[in-house]
Amino acid sequence: MHTHTEYLTYHTNKRRDLVHLTPTLEQILARSGMTEGFMLVSAMHITAAVFVNDDETGLHEDIWRWLERLAPSGIDYAHHSMGEDNGDAHLKAMLVHHEVIVPITKARLDLGTWQRVFYAEFDGRRDKRLIVKALGA
Amino acid sequence: MHTHTEYLTYHTNKRRDLVHLTPTLEQILARSGMTEGFMLVSAMHITAAVFVNDDETGLHEDIWRWLERLAPSGIDYAHHSMGEDNGDAHLKAMLVHHEVIVPITKARLDLGTWQRVFYAEFDGRRDKRLIVKALGA
Amino acid sequence: MHTHTEYLTYHTNKRRDLVHLTPTLEQILARSGMTEGFMLVSAMHITAAVFVNDDETGLHEDIWRWLERLAPSGIDYAHHSMGEDNGDAHLKAMLVHHEVIVPITKARLDLGTWQRVFYAEFDGRRDKRLIVKALGA
Repeated sequence: MHTHTEYLTYHTNKRRDLVHLTPTLEQILARSGMTEGFMLVSAMHITAAVFVNDDETGLHEDIWRWLERLAPSGIDYAHHSMGEDNGDAHLKAMLVHHEVIVPITKARLDLGTWQRVFYAEFDGRRDKRLIVKALGA
Repeated sequence: MHTHTEYLTYHTNKRRDLVHLTPTLEQILARSGMTEGFMLVSAMHITAAVFVNDDETGLHEDIWRWLERLAPSGIDYAHHSMGEDNGDAHLKAMLVHHEVIVPITKARLDLGTWQRVFYAEFDGRRDKRLIVKALGA
Repeated sequence: MHTHTEYLTYHTNKRRDLVHLTPTLEQILARSGMTEGFMLVSAMHITAAVFVNDDETGLHEDIWRWLERLAPSGIDYAHHSMGEDNGDAHLKAMLVHHEVIVPITKARLDLGTWQRVFYAEFDGRRDKRLIVKALGA
């Protein structure tokens, strides 16, 4: 059994943004030398998420509109009494989930044709970390 | 360490449907010969999901009604400008999440009494694939 | 490769409650002797969930209010025709997701500064089980 761990740091210019991670994950997989296993991709912050979906601009617009409808900003959240203003970012992160597992088969990320991995930032404009940890052989 | 990988293909007659996967996963586990580990069950499409809940018809009705309320069809999604009409299916897939990990203990799926694994199809009537990958010993 | 499995039982006094799991998970990790791998923390019931977020009281209030808005109780769910009254608890569990994977690095839970693991009970006042299973070396 073998593990390979890398940490990624993103600093988005916009408060809410998506980062396409798949090419970076493929490079990490190549560095790991792993041929079979699982790759965990997990945000290390509680106002960010990781998900798998399509790399299509229109869909991304729909996703942002939908997240804003289900977990709206501009509300007087109880969390804001601590001086924070990012209550919506916590709820959006819970909705999307902070991590995914990508299967590794024959030394490649075993994703479907249209599956791409994205980091979703809900409270950016500062350094935020992700852990990528592969476990396998 | 040992891995075992199988691909499942489902083609539902209805656009939106559930497929109960647990018996199939038990057969895959038996074929794998694995006694301890994790089984990843992951949709390879971006308009489908995998979840764990009860095998109860009334609840399944509630789940469909709820998904339609939170991620409705019949909306003019930006994604539809690409000629697609399945924007809601992408959002439903994000809501439910595309994968689960089932623990394997003493050569069985270590699920609670009422836990069953389901494939949720949000845009069917065509072949769709899932990956089932077990990692362990 | 090594696995370590423990089962936790919680019986909350309130029907809906949160239990902070991180200190318990750290003890399980110490008992496992594992230095690198994945720890699966998964509810074994279909009316409970596990999530990672902040240990902050105001945020927890916001989370409960939000879950009640998106998956309300007091609705005549089809599931209730079976004599149940916990339809909302199933939907809340689907929304939050029943499990997380915590990475293990250098013999510690590799969480971000503010990340804490919580068990979310949506239909308590009875014994409910979780499985904690670590896989690694």
